[in-house]
Amino acid sequence: MIKLSLVGIGSGNPDHLTLQAIRTLESADLILLPRKGDDKTELADLRRMIAQDILQTTPQIVEFDYPVRDAATPKYLDGVNTWHDALAAIWGGLIARHAHPDGHVALMVWGDPSLYDSTLRIADRLTAQGVNIEVSVVPGITSLQMLTAAHAIPLNTLAGAVQITTGRNLRDHGWPAGAETVAIMLDGECSFQHLDLDKYRIWWGAYVGMPIQLLIEGPLVDVHAEIVEARASARAQNGWIMDIYLLRKM
Amino acid sequence: MIKLSLVGIGSGNPDHLTLQAIRTLESADLILLPRKGDDKTELADLRRMIAQDILQTTPQIVEFDYPVRDAATPKYLDGVNTWHDALAAIWGGLIARHAHPDGHVALMVWGDPSLYDSTLRIADRLTAQGVNIEVSVVPGITSLQMLTAAHAIPLNTLAGAVQITTGRNLRDHGWPAGAETVAIMLDGECSFQHLDLDKYRIWWGAYVGMPIQLLIEGPLVDVHAEIVEARASARAQNGWIMDIYLLRKM
Repeated sequence: MIKLSLVGIGSGNPDHLTLQAIRTLESADLILLPRKGDDKTELADLRRMIAQDILQTTPQIVEFDYPVRDAATPKYLDGVNTWHDALAAIWGGLIARHAHPDGHVALMVWGDPSLYDSTLRIADRLTAQGVNIEVSVVPGITSLQMLTAAHAIPLNTLAGAVQITTGRNLRDHGWPAGAETVAIMLDGECSFQHLDLDKYRIWWGAYVGMPIQLLIEGPLVDVHAEIVEARASARAQNGWIMDIYLLRKM
Repeated sequence: MIKLSLVGIGSGNPDHLTLQAIRTLESADLILLPRKGDDKTELADLRRMIAQDILQTTPQIVEFDYPVRDAATPKYLDGVNTWHDALAAIWGGLIARHAHPDGHVALMVWGDPSLYDSTLRIADRLTAQGVNIEVSVVPGITSLQMLTAAHAIPLNTLAGAVQITTGRNLRDHGWPAGAETVAIMLDGECSFQHLDLDKYRIWWGAYVGMPIQLLIEGPLVDVHAEIVEARASARAQNGWIMDIYLLRKM
């Protein structure tokens, strides 16, 4: 049986690596290293840098290209599922070609494989297709943790509930009932603009944990336009952006 | 100004330490090391082991006793606030006595200082009392991340919302509206028993990430009694327990 380790590597800084992540990568026989498009070169380079400079022993590295997600697929989830199928086929082919039947294959995952990440679902597809793998997960520091650390704030209010959700959910359903804090991931549209601006405080961050990190916080009514502008400007300058934010009732 | 670093150290295994956590602790002049009661000796020992065996340079270490939280205080939050005040007074006294006015003081925090942890609130009290400190946070792997890693499951369903909350909130308010997944922390009473058992699946873990880790998962209706029993038995055997669980609609 092949052991497939999904290793969380944190949020853009090799110092986020845990000792467990380093040891797991060092003990692998094969690391599958995805190439990203040119627009995210800092991230792709960091993954390669970890493999080459941080690990004391370097396993065999096989690079592969991500399939392109078809944004034109009518239903969002259909598009995602097709994309996961395509990635599972790529992983399966590379594992069959390069790994021993009882080898240890590792993949580096941004943040933590458990949080808004596809790798566990893709690995499940391999198992469903009859590929003989045992999946193992090494958690990593998420961008949400880097956001709260950078602002030096707790995620939750005292004994209060936190909802982690997407920009799409916030736009479609508004503020989640019962939550005192909401963390928004995967939001390309600054969906906080759809809320009642007077009611909430925001802690926003882009490229959190990286040298080019940007942070803005304050009452939503005061800083919403500044965030929209900073986001657009940083995206234009760097060619890509990853941002995240926390909202709290005032 | 004194730099106060709150350093997340993960969930009971020194391998959870990040490189950033190790470097921050090594660069401190003073580490404040809380002693716990005898019932949690494994955890207290681990913190001391990290300071003595993992760090390449050992800063000055000052140990202190936790004040006892008064469970008899009528309102839960009042009791917590009094306890935070007492801890802030202890930290303030130790910093005044042992740290240079421009020194670097570090505290090791289980999991991540942002998630259901008091240290950021206690540090805020010091600032409010006029102690001249700058607070810095180093995130760590939480028990929630260890739980999903141990079960090799994602935290969220595809594009679905996750609510992180307490056993008390689950008992008082039931299943949170809009959430497909609920993660329960700080639950001493197996509050999942108050839900409609037929509707949910549970992934439970105790001592997650430690050698004595226990895991149980399945439809709540099938495994709820087994979890209650395993929890009571492990608590009796080890003298303490820390557990956490994830619930998902079936």
